[in-house]
Amino acid sequence: MIKRIAVFEENGFSDFNFKNFLVNDSEFFKIINFNFKAGQMLPVHSHDIDGQVSIAVMEGQGEFLGKDNSIFPANTGDVLVSDIREPHGIRAKTDMRVLVTIAPPI
Amino acid sequence: MIKRIAVFEENGFSDFNFKNFLVNDSEFFKIINFNFKAGQMLPVHSHDIDGQVSIAVMEGQGEFLGKDNSIFPANTGDVLVSDIREPHGIRAKTDMRVLVTIAPPI
Repeated sequence: MIKRIAVFEENGFSDFNFKNFLVNDSEFFKIINFNFKAGQMLPVHSHDIDGQVSIAVMEGQGEFLGKDNSIFPANTGDVLVSDIREPHGIRAKTDMRVLVTIAPPI
Repeated sequence: MIKRIAVFEENGFSDFNFKNFLVNDSEFFKIINFNFKAGQMLPVHSHDIDGQVSIAVMEGQGEFLGKDNSIFPANTGDVLVSDIREPHGIRAKTDMRVLVTIAPPI
């Protein structure tokens, strides 16, 4: 299996909430694109399971969020890597496109 | 574990060959950033093991490469998902930054 996904063409933005688009789902990893308008966010969350998640900023800028209200810059090209059981989230300062990869897939 | 990696700051370009930078290595996935100057490439290759690889274009443009000299556009925001045992590669038309995720890690 090999496939190319034009993520910037496949998924847009909404004034109401972030828009997510499933890029890949397999036994190995799940890849989801989230688009945020400025101000939108994926609140801090976690799941009590083994595994890791990466969040790569493809466009725009914002903030990665962690436990105890911790904040990390999230500029284009930045990647957050977190255990799934560790609290993590993201908030957009500008319109923002991110790629989330979860392994093993939830 | 949670960490932020400023990939665009951590890795540069070389006139001699692509530059790679290890973003994450764990039991769940390996993430590597490759930077290509225009014209540089990662030739088509494959490994006879289970798993998948994603190649996300963070900046620039080029071409994803597949078996039998097949070519797919590789613009910023495009993602290639391939079985590890399926031939895959990439060639840069402009300076190009990509993020490669391999699960399970090789």
